[in-house]
Amino acid sequence: MKVRNILGERFKEAPKDCTIASHALMVRGGYMRYMSNGIYSLYTPGKRIMQKIEAIIRDEMDKIGGQEVMFPVVMPASLWEESGRYTSIGSEMARFEDRSKNKMVLGMTHEEAAVHLARDIANSYTDFPFMIYQIQTKFRDEPRARGGLIRVREFTMKDAYSFHTSMEDLQEYYKLCHKAYENIYKRVGAKNVISVASDSGMMGGSVSHEFMLLSEIGEDTLAICPSCDYKANMEAAECKTQPLNSEVKELEKVYTPDTKTIEALSEFLHIEEKDLCKAVVYQKNATDEYVIIFIRGDLEVNETKLRNYLGEEIHPALEITEESGIVAGFIGPVNSKANAQMIFDKSLIGMNNMVCGANEVDHHYVGANLERDLGKVEYTDVAKIFEGAECPCCGKPGIKIEKGIEVGNIFQLGTKYTKSMNMTYLDKEGKQQYPIMGCYGIGVGRLAASICQESHDDYGPIWPMPIAPWQVEICALRCDNEQVRGLADRLYTTLQDKGVEVLFDDRDIRPGAMFADADLFGVPVRVVVSPKNCEKNVVEVSLRDKSLKTEFSIDTAVEDIIKLVESEKDKYKL
Amino acid sequence: MKVRNILGERFKEAPKDCTIASHALMVRGGYMRYMSNGIYSLYTPGKRIMQKIEAIIRDEMDKIGGQEVMFPVVMPASLWEESGRYTSIGSEMARFEDRSKNKMVLGMTHEEAAVHLARDIANSYTDFPFMIYQIQTKFRDEPRARGGLIRVREFTMKDAYSFHTSMEDLQEYYKLCHKAYENIYKRVGAKNVISVASDSGMMGGSVSHEFMLLSEIGEDTLAICPSCDYKANMEAAECKTQPLNSEVKELEKVYTPDTKTIEALSEFLHIEEKDLCKAVVYQKNATDEYVIIFIRGDLEVNETKLRNYLGEEIHPALEITEESGIVAGFIGPVNSKANAQMIFDKSLIGMNNMVCGANEVDHHYVGANLERDLGKVEYTDVAKIFEGAECPCCGKPGIKIEKGIEVGNIFQLGTKYTKSMNMTYLDKEGKQQYPIMGCYGIGVGRLAASICQESHDDYGPIWPMPIAPWQVEICALRCDNEQVRGLADRLYTTLQDKGVEVLFDDRDIRPGAMFADADLFGVPVRVVVSPKNCEKNVVEVSLRDKSLKTEFSIDTAVEDIIKLVESEKDKYKL
Repeated sequence: MKVRNILGERFKEAPKDCTIASHALMVRGGYMRYMSNGIYSLYTPGKRIMQKIEAIIRDEMDKIGGQEVMFPVVMPASLWEESGRYTSIGSEMARFEDRSKNKMVLGMTHEEAAVHLARDIANSYTDFPFMIYQIQTKFRDEPRARGGLIRVREFTMKDAYSFHTSMEDLQEYYKLCHKAYENIYKRVGAKNVISVASDSGMMGGSVSHEFMLLSEIGEDTLAICPSCDYKANMEAAECKTQPLNSEVKELEKVYTPDTKTIEALSEFLHIEEKDLCKAVVYQKNATDEYVIIFIRGDLEVNETKLRNYLGEEIHPALEITEESGIVAGFIGPVNSKANAQMIFDKSLIGMNNMVCGANEVDHHYVGANLERDLGKVEYTDVAKIFEGAECPCCGKPGIKIEKGIEVGNIFQLGTKYTKSMNMTYLDKEGKQQYPIMGCYGIGVGRLAASICQESHDDYGPIWPMPIAPWQVEICALRCDNEQVRGLADRLYTTLQDKGVEVLFDDRDIRPGAMFADADLFGVPVRVVVSPKNCEKNVVEVSLRDKSLKTEFSIDTAVEDIIKLVESEKDKYKL
Repeated sequence: MKVRNILGERFKEAPKDCTIASHALMVRGGYMRYMSNGIYSLYTPGKRIMQKIEAIIRDEMDKIGGQEVMFPVVMPASLWEESGRYTSIGSEMARFEDRSKNKMVLGMTHEEAAVHLARDIANSYTDFPFMIYQIQTKFRDEPRARGGLIRVREFTMKDAYSFHTSMEDLQEYYKLCHKAYENIYKRVGAKNVISVASDSGMMGGSVSHEFMLLSEIGEDTLAICPSCDYKANMEAAECKTQPLNSEVKELEKVYTPDTKTIEALSEFLHIEEKDLCKAVVYQKNATDEYVIIFIRGDLEVNETKLRNYLGEEIHPALEITEESGIVAGFIGPVNSKANAQMIFDKSLIGMNNMVCGANEVDHHYVGANLERDLGKVEYTDVAKIFEGAECPCCGKPGIKIEKGIEVGNIFQLGTKYTKSMNMTYLDKEGKQQYPIMGCYGIGVGRLAASICQESHDDYGPIWPMPIAPWQVEICALRCDNEQVRGLADRLYTTLQDKGVEVLFDDRDIRPGAMFADADLFGVPVRVVVSPKNCEKNVVEVSLRDKSLKTEFSIDTAVEDIIKLVESEKDKYKL
């Protein structure tokens, strides 16, 4: 393809609304165009990258026996009512009424559709296992679309669904799929992707993993143990703390004026924050009921864990009413008159001599001991794991906290959907059973943007060969020169005939402008044809990642370029 | 792929709701599954056919310089407000409000998105011409989805948009695209596709063509001249009639009791229907205003032409009120007191001695002559062309009326969208101009279903090689036989290694059931491996279309099968 024909403009200044590099570069490079909040069109270079990633994903899915199918984007609400998600999912799901006033939804995931496709058809144990997948457009009405293709509302997703007759079979397949995902990330050229244990969220099921591309701009926080293999999303990571083994003392109420915050109290009493019991107040979304979390003073509440424990949506308390009996700033578990559900974080286990609110303005207790002062207490893990924390797996301290972009996820769903939607099969003994499901997703656009984020310089993306929009770019300087024109045209034609994907810039523009555009196209192999080089009987060849800059003799240029393309491809082979 | 692993069931009985063969066969063959009115999921065989058609379309679009891009499915209403179509399109367009109460629409076509993608970017005449296209999901809330994939609400469409700086350039490109479409139909194996002049409908623009696959189940009616090249959709075909040259007579009111219909009146007066002037009453949707069409008694009103002439939506009058002054059954142009817009079809030109309603119960005029009795009359062509009519192009009688399925359309849009959406460029003289657009669509699923409709027998589809879900099916009878197992496995592996797409049925079922399934898969080349054949050192090879049934020696089977596949492919080469 010739650069002069490609629709899209490339420019130098980062647009003001682009806060991350990949977003800015993909706008500056003419890959995408903003249409509406979280909704983009893609120009040809962007579309080509997507197609290449899709082809690699398709190949890996086919290799593990996947059958490509196609589900509708628009589905009847009735299908989602069967699974219960029509009501359990909130405003992230787009809904409308069709001309006959039927309620419809836009697919944001397709478990219901997968069950619908297989139900009544896979009805004998001999029909299992199988996996179906699609690569298609989804719409999720994200409250905070951001970062270009990193977090959008409309996106292309590969979603796969496997069906099994035993947990063992699912687990076996889950491993296979985990491996296929590793293959995909390697083959598309994503370097720093790790899989972490995750919280299953609205998908249901228990075991699940997220594939995280490590990046400072990631929205997910990960806990990684440098001593063992433990890696988890902070939302799922258990926070383990050791009891402080402090001396047991008498419970005593003390006057602590103006100490509404942990910092103030810690300073006033000259004790460390970890010796305090902090109270954090939430409210249940459905009922406004208050929920008080007691947690060690230096720790924070992990809202996802709290949400999962309660099994319902919550939000930080907006206002604490007088009738609630909650004394803001002085909340404590002992002698509380609060009309609220109380939750005790595991970090409080064994704190013998604790400072906590006395449920009375300007007063705290010191020497509190939950077991003694309250009787039997049930503890729950709702604390955020922290840098340096003890590994929940090997027990060694030194947990690292890193940021990651979720570029894929896999779930062991179990029978949540097959049960609710009444999909059954007859087992060997002729007994009706519910199939066990797994599901496996990859957002294609987000993966493309994440790779750009991981692999770029100030001048543009550095696309890995397997997903680069083109493999070779020919920059012909001074095409008015007959030799240049002739050679460049010949290289363009010959390379294409030999199956190389070539971008050809034969515009009559300054070399600086042409190279700036080439940097934005991010094509791995660059071939410069110029009058000076022609005289020397060479072409100048370089790699976009700057690891190579050399000259090839014109006589062997085609073969040498092909060899270079192949060696670049090899880097990403399994 | 092995038949035993494919999700989907095949069965003998046509489902009750399938009124056309292709629909029944594609359900019976496990290609698709109904989810909701006009909304289907596709199983792997259906998805594979789609992908093959898409690849051929993509190739032809790329050959004429098309750039593949991607537009969003969900778009902001504001974009459609710019073009005016947010209000001009009715309930076919699905609309919803997002979580921030922004009005959104689902794309049913993407002219607005195409202009949005190119606007501000193609701003110099040197940026033109260009063509962008996508292959993507669309949703159109069809009031009457029917025929399986023939008319659905959600569908995959290739839609292309070209931009030009002159009408000549557009027309040149339009021809190129017309040719590309012909190539596509040939390459996918659609045999009876013709292009007809069409009505441009809601797309705007003037010149347009539809590609029609001739079929009795088609919803479109076509007028085809056997003497010249004239082919048009009935909605666009001019209806030409010769003046009857009857003798001029006096206008006379006659008593015609109980002659409210044309038939009754024709019988009562002993004259032919073509000597009568018929009145047909419509109402404008927006205002309820009556519109009376006067037309020769033997002709019918073409509502599309009428709609285009009026420039607004109309419907047959539901009720004729007394205040309207319209005397139902006795409506005539002479001495009318009707409060209605009157339209005179061209078929009335030169009718000197006409019978028409006298606007008085049980009375008609005879001897009417419009020019004499009304003064100057403006005539319009709103009549339906009919079997045997005069060709509007060469003038010879004998127009044939045929049915067709619209499998593609191309439009010369002009500046309708660039003007309304303010897309401009600077021409050579530095003057601001609006680019001229063309647009070009193909519904992928409808094309697949139409080919099935055209190419099937009672037992299943007969897929043309280029779009068949697989190229070869191996039916292994008695896989418990060691020789059969060994040979079938070897053929399966070797053919696949050589790039042949093979479906392999190694199930332990009766030959009849296996062949019935094979017929439903419609794979072009069938290879039967059986104990009997093995003994004879042969495999049985046949073509699904029954044009070949032979035996290949086992020793040369692989090469012979590949040759057969290639010769089948050749049939569809350009």
